[in-house]
Amino acid sequence: MPASPVEFWFDFGSNYSYLSAMRIEALAREQKVEVVWKPFLLGVVFKALGWESSPFVLQKLKGDYVWRDMARLCAKYGLPWRQPSTFPRTALLPMRVVLIGADQGWIAPFSRRMMTMNFAEDRDIDNLDAVGEALTTLGLDAPAILALALTDENKLRLRRQTQQAQALGLFGAPGFVCNGELFWGNDRLHDALAWATVTEPRACHPDNQPE
Amino acid sequence: MPASPVEFWFDFGSNYSYLSAMRIEALAREQKVEVVWKPFLLGVVFKALGWESSPFVLQKLKGDYVWRDMARLCAKYGLPWRQPSTFPRTALLPMRVVLIGADQGWIAPFSRRMMTMNFAEDRDIDNLDAVGEALTTLGLDAPAILALALTDENKLRLRRQTQQAQALGLFGAPGFVCNGELFWGNDRLHDALAWATVTEPRACHPDNQPE
Repeated sequence: MPASPVEFWFDFGSNYSYLSAMRIEALAREQKVEVVWKPFLLGVVFKALGWESSPFVLQKLKGDYVWRDMARLCAKYGLPWRQPSTFPRTALLPMRVVLIGADQGWIAPFSRRMMTMNFAEDRDIDNLDAVGEALTTLGLDAPAILALALTDENKLRLRRQTQQAQALGLFGAPGFVCNGELFWGNDRLHDALAWATVTEPRACHPDNQPE
Repeated sequence: MPASPVEFWFDFGSNYSYLSAMRIEALAREQKVEVVWKPFLLGVVFKALGWESSPFVLQKLKGDYVWRDMARLCAKYGLPWRQPSTFPRTALLPMRVVLIGADQGWIAPFSRRMMTMNFAEDRDIDNLDAVGEALTTLGLDAPAILALALTDENKLRLRRQTQQAQALGLFGAPGFVCNGELFWGNDRLHDALAWATVTEPRACHPDNQPE
């Protein structure tokens, strides 16, 4: 029985999404699992929950911890890391552009490039220069792609995909959805991929008790 | 060079502390790491942060997710699990009692028993019956221990230990502290134990970048 696909829900402004975006394709390949990249606007989700910014900004103690946690995790994973001087960075333009990549087959490498700009190079990414540079580096036709990205239809598509994230119960990023199961956070990446290859229902309903 | 000890900061009301409390001694033994159990009042920490209850109660979407996450993780770890009908459970009496166990050498088995009552048996634990039963099951002198636990000195000790948790920057539970490093959450248990055996400084300050 083939593995089920795993949806990877992310936002370019989300630091823990960076950790997953850089690793998910290699890990999924090892397990022969297909990844479906699902960009959504995390800020919209936060606002609907009543938060005016990231919890890492609103809760100073947790925010301080998060940057230390990120440095340790990047060292562990062998990923480059520089704490962004602006957080959370807006990413509306690259989030619109990356949707085109879902159709054209370059969503993963473009996403890794955006994430690297934000979290390893401390660069603003919500502008034509950064996005154009990333597209060109990948050998893509930047003007044609930007034209597609900025249509009303595509803008609406990103809004709809964000609503879909809310309907799935997402309250943060990254999220992973597999066989109707939601997993939240980079810490659940392995569990989500393992779920893709489960062939029988897991005994993990609320009454589950060994013995 | 011997491994550094790892402090394990927990509250009996904290569901993710349950996952660590049940597993930490076996995992630490494998790595020859000493565990120092550090009970603290998580509710006091939350109140000081402006939260009137657990974030899993205050944020309904996250709360719903957490119970599913717990069921999955318990299935993965082979731990019994029943969603508590009261959450978060108060645990002031057992938290006072467990401090005596730190002096007398039974803090780990008593903690596992309290956690099991709360998260596998759905029993209230903040009463003399539950605490007395747990002590007696361990072959301990329940009346003598309860007398020690209820002295003003011991109550003050728990308050001081909670202040120490705040001074360490703890904003949730469980927490692990090793060599001055704070790790938050059951998901960091392995990383905290690994930190205990690090012999040279890790390259994980904010400017860390491979190459």
